[in-house]
Amino acid sequence: MRIAIPLYPGFTALDAIGPYTVLSLAPGASVRFVAAERGPVLDDQGELSVAATASYADLPRPDIVLVPGGVGTMEAMSDEKLVTWLREAHEHTRWTTSVCTGSYLLGAAGLLRGRKATTHWSLLDHLAGVGAEPVSERVVIDGKIVTAAGVSAGIDMALTLLALATDETTAQAVQLAIEYDPHPPFATGSLATAPAGLAERALGLIT
Amino acid sequence: MRIAIPLYPGFTALDAIGPYTVLSLAPGASVRFVAAERGPVLDDQGELSVAATASYADLPRPDIVLVPGGVGTMEAMSDEKLVTWLREAHEHTRWTTSVCTGSYLLGAAGLLRGRKATTHWSLLDHLAGVGAEPVSERVVIDGKIVTAAGVSAGIDMALTLLALATDETTAQAVQLAIEYDPHPPFATGSLATAPAGLAERALGLIT
Repeated sequence: MRIAIPLYPGFTALDAIGPYTVLSLAPGASVRFVAAERGPVLDDQGELSVAATASYADLPRPDIVLVPGGVGTMEAMSDEKLVTWLREAHEHTRWTTSVCTGSYLLGAAGLLRGRKATTHWSLLDHLAGVGAEPVSERVVIDGKIVTAAGVSAGIDMALTLLALATDETTAQAVQLAIEYDPHPPFATGSLATAPAGLAERALGLIT
Repeated sequence: MRIAIPLYPGFTALDAIGPYTVLSLAPGASVRFVAAERGPVLDDQGELSVAATASYADLPRPDIVLVPGGVGTMEAMSDEKLVTWLREAHEHTRWTTSVCTGSYLLGAAGLLRGRKATTHWSLLDHLAGVGAEPVSERVVIDGKIVTAAGVSAGIDMALTLLALATDETTAQAVQLAIEYDPHPPFATGSLATAPAGLAERALGLIT
């Protein structure tokens, strides 16, 4: 099972690394970080630099593509090399997936037309602009397109995807291996439960 | 608020990147990846290479130290440069923290003697070997020592720590920014809820 995670300047670290950590633990999985050229790619906090170990040309036909979001997503929508690779790779994938605003890159490649999809809560409605039907759920599966809500939702998506790609016991074992028994300290991880005014404050941190 | 995350060969990616993503969103926070020398450090899956952007000499007095765990932890316990930096940095920190087996590195630096602490479920009892009192909780606070359980517990720990280091509203806003409203697909993230036999299978994936 060959999994490709494309990196671009301004990706959000946890969007990529949550699913990477989940999927790379699966027996037989090979997860590669990919970009136009091999080498370091800087995240949206400007401090984390992850090395792409494969170029798009090295990995034309991965089984799973997983696109992270980030502050740099909107600029990356006009990155022709990335968008063309996504469009062509998608023709052969078992699953084409995204975390957070990564769904906008699937949209830029024309892959979300008429599809149910999700993204970060702050940009959910706009997803209709790339032809998708926005859905406010943590993980949305529509055929072979699987999209996750913001940032940390990638972990839930990767475990769900792993159960589909292998079997439930393998995904359950990975969940135990990473001790994913979350105890969020607050009930503020969703717009539905956050107190009034917190959304503006959260947006101030990420824009 | 200067936060240092030491990297060593064989660290687990999510242990470092979960807390990094949480803490780097806080206003005024500066998170640096640190090692004996600047440059890329390979994780325990052998595919993720994160660049250390500071040397130990560059960052002698961070306000917070956060030590990730990983398959490479046991070997890193005899890394004198790392252990000495931890011991000396700890004298000046507000908090000295770890995720997963990272607590063994705090132990190697002599920082856990007589302290309540936690680690990955598979190695909890052995933590007494470095003088700690092992506690089976997701996040354990004993004075300025804060330890988290396995891998994904670092996210819960970082949000808890951020509330202490800044204020609850800031931590709540970060939790909303990363949409941390977890929906684990299975109830297998803890030994207490995992079915019989799953622990052996999980251990097979990480050892």
